[in-house]
Amino acid sequence: MDRYFDEELKELKSKLILMATLVQGMIKMAIDALKERSPEKIKEVFNTEQDVNLLQIQIDDYALKLIALKQPAASDLRLVVAAMKINSDLERIADQAVNIAERAQDLIKLPPLKPLIDIPRMAQITQEMVKDAIESFINRNSSLAKGVCKRDDEVDALNGQIFRELLTYMMQDPNNIARSLDLILVARHLERIADLATNICEDVYYIVEGKDIRHHIQNNT
Amino acid sequence: MDRYFDEELKELKSKLILMATLVQGMIKMAIDALKERSPEKIKEVFNTEQDVNLLQIQIDDYALKLIALKQPAASDLRLVVAAMKINSDLERIADQAVNIAERAQDLIKLPPLKPLIDIPRMAQITQEMVKDAIESFINRNSSLAKGVCKRDDEVDALNGQIFRELLTYMMQDPNNIARSLDLILVARHLERIADLATNICEDVYYIVEGKDIRHHIQNNT
Repeated sequence: MDRYFDEELKELKSKLILMATLVQGMIKMAIDALKERSPEKIKEVFNTEQDVNLLQIQIDDYALKLIALKQPAASDLRLVVAAMKINSDLERIADQAVNIAERAQDLIKLPPLKPLIDIPRMAQITQEMVKDAIESFINRNSSLAKGVCKRDDEVDALNGQIFRELLTYMMQDPNNIARSLDLILVARHLERIADLATNICEDVYYIVEGKDIRHHIQNNT
Repeated sequence: MDRYFDEELKELKSKLILMATLVQGMIKMAIDALKERSPEKIKEVFNTEQDVNLLQIQIDDYALKLIALKQPAASDLRLVVAAMKINSDLERIADQAVNIAERAQDLIKLPPLKPLIDIPRMAQITQEMVKDAIESFINRNSSLAKGVCKRDDEVDALNGQIFRELLTYMMQDPNNIARSLDLILVARHLERIADLATNICEDVYYIVEGKDIRHHIQNNT
């Protein structure tokens, strides 16, 4: 790899780190807004989304220019393309955080249904997954990447548990239905964030180890 | 563009058309499974997903090799990268069809809640959106692409209408809750498919017109 390209890859990575930091902040902010019933924090999520959207386009353009002008060798090319995919996954995570903030907007209009324990826990795990996913890419750490994929099962289990509990609330009293539904959707958005972090880690694993763990193909063959 | 690269772009496009055909088939099959209460059709959705997953990896590899070996000029590069993004969006649509089939699996265990009218209509529109999205890419048709983005609003409206109706069912009788929830999720998966078709069309518009309509930036500035 020539020295010049090395610099540009570093720049691309630092842009991605910024994007990931914004996106993690949005997840935290959306769940805090829900816990603290704060309209200001909801608004902050919406505002940050604008920055994320602009940054996504910037990163895409930068990566494309890099490919066009520097015509990188196969392994570097794979890295730049992976960065573009991660960029798109991060933007999708930001969308999910916005969806959570929208649910919070409805939920804080009504009295709380129940104290929130499992949802903040789920949010904590998914934030860490996003953080580790990006770190595994930056440091080419395939074992960290694999660990993120495993934590996805934990998130799925929590989501199932939350769903069953809220279903019981709905059955007990029709007045609980709208709020239970909103909370079920919040949990699903978090589960989707965990899926997207897992997608990133599957790509990282592929780049580092040269083996594809998307769609768990090893298990099928 | 050299003649040789032209051939390879054609090959890439024909692979994407195959992928899109499989994915559209999965949406149709999943909704038919729900309407006809057919476990065989549910299984067919799951089986087709395996083919889609393999094809996704093939297309990705083909596109990467194309970039590495042919080092295309900027505009061709943009086309190949767009093809990779569309490939990933199509795979995400297939995932949503699988989610619908999973909900159908639960729903056909219980008697029907109500005759299904709006959901099949929504499914019909989303299938056409996917079809038109791919066609707009193949034929570089930016007005077709823009039309797809507009139909996304129609799908969102239908989703809202279905949600409100099913909420009423849930309020009326706790026995309706589980089935109503499953149907709400089916509608959300369809809405997500429409979003993904819209993503594809935004990319197509960008390639053809050189203007970015992602995140509706024109409206913000």
